[in-house]
Amino acid sequence: MSTPFTGRKIPAYDLLDETALARIEDQADWILDKIGVEFRGDQRALDYLAQAGARVDGERVRFEPGHARALCGTAPAEFQLRARDPVKTVILGGDNVVLMPGYGSPFVSDLANGRRYATLEDFRNFVKLAYSAPALHHSGGTVVEPTDVPVNKRHLDMLLAHLTLSTKPFMGSVTAPERARDSIEMARLVFGEVMDRHAVMQANINVNSPLIYDETMSSALRIYAEAGQCVCVSPAIFAGAMGPLSPAAVAAQTLAEAIVGIALTQLVRPGCPVVFGSFHSSMNLRTGALTFGVPVRSGGGQITASNAPDGQAMQDSTGAIWSTLLSGAHQVWHAAGWLEGGLVMSYEKFIMDLDHCGAMLKLLQGFDSDDEAFGRDAYFETGPGENFLSTCHTLRHYTTANFEPQISDAGPFETWSESGALPADQRSTARWHQMLNDYQQPEMKPGIQAALEDFVSKRKAQMPDEWY
Amino acid sequence: MSTPFTGRKIPAYDLLDETALARIEDQADWILDKIGVEFRGDQRALDYLAQAGARVDGERVRFEPGHARALCGTAPAEFQLRARDPVKTVILGGDNVVLMPGYGSPFVSDLANGRRYATLEDFRNFVKLAYSAPALHHSGGTVVEPTDVPVNKRHLDMLLAHLTLSTKPFMGSVTAPERARDSIEMARLVFGEVMDRHAVMQANINVNSPLIYDETMSSALRIYAEAGQCVCVSPAIFAGAMGPLSPAAVAAQTLAEAIVGIALTQLVRPGCPVVFGSFHSSMNLRTGALTFGVPVRSGGGQITASNAPDGQAMQDSTGAIWSTLLSGAHQVWHAAGWLEGGLVMSYEKFIMDLDHCGAMLKLLQGFDSDDEAFGRDAYFETGPGENFLSTCHTLRHYTTANFEPQISDAGPFETWSESGALPADQRSTARWHQMLNDYQQPEMKPGIQAALEDFVSKRKAQMPDEWY
Repeated sequence: MSTPFTGRKIPAYDLLDETALARIEDQADWILDKIGVEFRGDQRALDYLAQAGARVDGERVRFEPGHARALCGTAPAEFQLRARDPVKTVILGGDNVVLMPGYGSPFVSDLANGRRYATLEDFRNFVKLAYSAPALHHSGGTVVEPTDVPVNKRHLDMLLAHLTLSTKPFMGSVTAPERARDSIEMARLVFGEVMDRHAVMQANINVNSPLIYDETMSSALRIYAEAGQCVCVSPAIFAGAMGPLSPAAVAAQTLAEAIVGIALTQLVRPGCPVVFGSFHSSMNLRTGALTFGVPVRSGGGQITASNAPDGQAMQDSTGAIWSTLLSGAHQVWHAAGWLEGGLVMSYEKFIMDLDHCGAMLKLLQGFDSDDEAFGRDAYFETGPGENFLSTCHTLRHYTTANFEPQISDAGPFETWSESGALPADQRSTARWHQMLNDYQQPEMKPGIQAALEDFVSKRKAQMPDEWY
Repeated sequence: MSTPFTGRKIPAYDLLDETALARIEDQADWILDKIGVEFRGDQRALDYLAQAGARVDGERVRFEPGHARALCGTAPAEFQLRARDPVKTVILGGDNVVLMPGYGSPFVSDLANGRRYATLEDFRNFVKLAYSAPALHHSGGTVVEPTDVPVNKRHLDMLLAHLTLSTKPFMGSVTAPERARDSIEMARLVFGEVMDRHAVMQANINVNSPLIYDETMSSALRIYAEAGQCVCVSPAIFAGAMGPLSPAAVAAQTLAEAIVGIALTQLVRPGCPVVFGSFHSSMNLRTGALTFGVPVRSGGGQITASNAPDGQAMQDSTGAIWSTLLSGAHQVWHAAGWLEGGLVMSYEKFIMDLDHCGAMLKLLQGFDSDDEAFGRDAYFETGPGENFLSTCHTLRHYTTANFEPQISDAGPFETWSESGALPADQRSTARWHQMLNDYQQPEMKPGIQAALEDFVSKRKAQMPDEWY
């Protein structure tokens, strides 16, 4: 049973008025015209942009106001990200909200074993947990860094895990051109020609903010765009470090940086599906309201700098996902597990976050105000001072009225005490063990599984181990 | 140093469209016309309403559509709640957001001593803590139940504490007519004739939902309204028990119940300052968007049913205050300390909540999009790939750019581990001890202090102890 990603029914929150939004767009235009963006070491990217009319000066690229934005016009507003299991296919854009697990942590922690380097086993565990979680719609990418695998071979094991242990959409490698190509080739072993017409995977292109696309990122961007796969262009700006410290300036710089990457995808392959990403720290609210016709990914699902899955962690995480979901974001990275500024993926926090994802997805469904919702018949059954619990209206709806959490405990203090007085993080331990225990690997044609494993072992044999 | 309650700069979130709001208002009219509200045992209230044209049948009162609402027309949209220290005076309504501590818990807990019945010492402690907290603008009412004082004498000790240990606005007793009168008399010893022109205290009138005003509540309402003091009319509806289980129905019933109480305040004393309260459980978002011309109080600042100040508690609390503040509420009950569905006031959660209140007040200030915010000069000082930390723009603004929490710890794992690996609740213990230690009682004219103490001891001497 999955919690639907479709049909968000409550509106996005308009933090800023039209004047402020226009000023942010003007500032983005100003940055691209007067300062520009550098593509370092990628002559092909520079050629694409020069040919499209940008002012290229060495590695610096500048645009007349409005020009870069106009180049983005062929990007689709909404598109499918096809999954191996058709019921897991998601639509990015529109009224949809796709939740994903955390990304990129070199460490994991659980309450029994503490904090330690993440391994391939942890990676596979989190793929299984995300597959088992109704509130997550996507398998993620580098859910944790499998640090026990050589750096140059990790992508092979990660893709194998996403493709065989889950049927949800996933992300490919971007850390080197050959790793991007391997990712696409492995996906092709599973999806075949579908990939000529549809995106089946995503690549996260981090801008090296401020205002730099390095060769690794821009070539990965080009490789995925050439293959017609989904590119997510993600400026990651810590206010005051990679940009001015004010939220308006960070929003404008994000827009400027993202526009250029999105423009490049469209020059490489017009119509290539693309997602506008953002990751800001020290911003209180994400300005998802930017008027831009592609899906928007928000960086911070349930993020925190806390060192433990404690009250601070959940305070931070809950605030972050409220701002993210109210901003109107279409895709939410890091919706579960993230701890310690992303250094750690916590098994227990993953479970607590899932509970909250479920509640938030229910909230996105809004509420009805039709005749049935008002339950007038119940007022004739009862009266002032009387109880509504046994009215026909309550009986018609009580099973679906509220979200039922797994971890949250609203029972009496006495019962809770007698069960050991466990705080939420300790109650979560049993849950992730149970989920891994109950996990059943989805079926795959034996030939495909063998082809994938064969690809991985052949590629591994072609390369010496690199550890850094 | 107080965090201002004034000048909210970000808009309320419009969860519902005009059609849905109109349907909720129609449903409220329907309830008041076809079902009605009962005033039990309060003939004077029934007389007021009959004289104003309501259809009174025994204790049941019904209204033609729109009539009850029209009777509310003299209630002010915005008014002062005067404090003993003028700089602590707050304005309820408009762009203001007034945060208050929890209300009504019979138990307290702290990590060292666990969960226990609250005493007068705890009450005084929480008055001191709220006085010391920059993020709280109000001393609250029954911040905890002083269970070691006879029930019929508690209000005297509580009022004495609010009036002498704090200078922030406060609430009076409503649990019996003579207790309401005592509260007003004690306030008059401090404020004198100011009370003829201004509200200096609030009374929380809980509707006995569904659709009942009992004699205790409606007579307290009349007593405070006669004295021109602020009445907060608070339907408290658990969806499915005191009303239908759907959020739209609960919103409509809340509106219906509140309108009648507000109408009564205006019949007793036209222009009496009044606040529209609400407390719903099992609602995901409060519909603060109700188009009603008086200040709105939202029940749930940082509320939770959790049995410990753990991740669940802060997940619940953070979600609740996001919905509360985005709803546009003007006054927020239970912004700090509430645990276990209100049964417990937690010292440590109080501290964690204060941190979050400070952050949320910062968020309500929104952000600028003027030229200075965009920091164009910084882009000329640095360039693509360079750091903004030492730019003049950063130096001009870094001290005020971000909220600086007291408890939240974003430092490295190693430092945190070496300091004992304390989760947020454990880090909060030292803070509340420190605040109580640093607390200094505000000055009061000796004659006034003596008069208050004299009043309390005389009234106590007039009554036998009642313990239930």
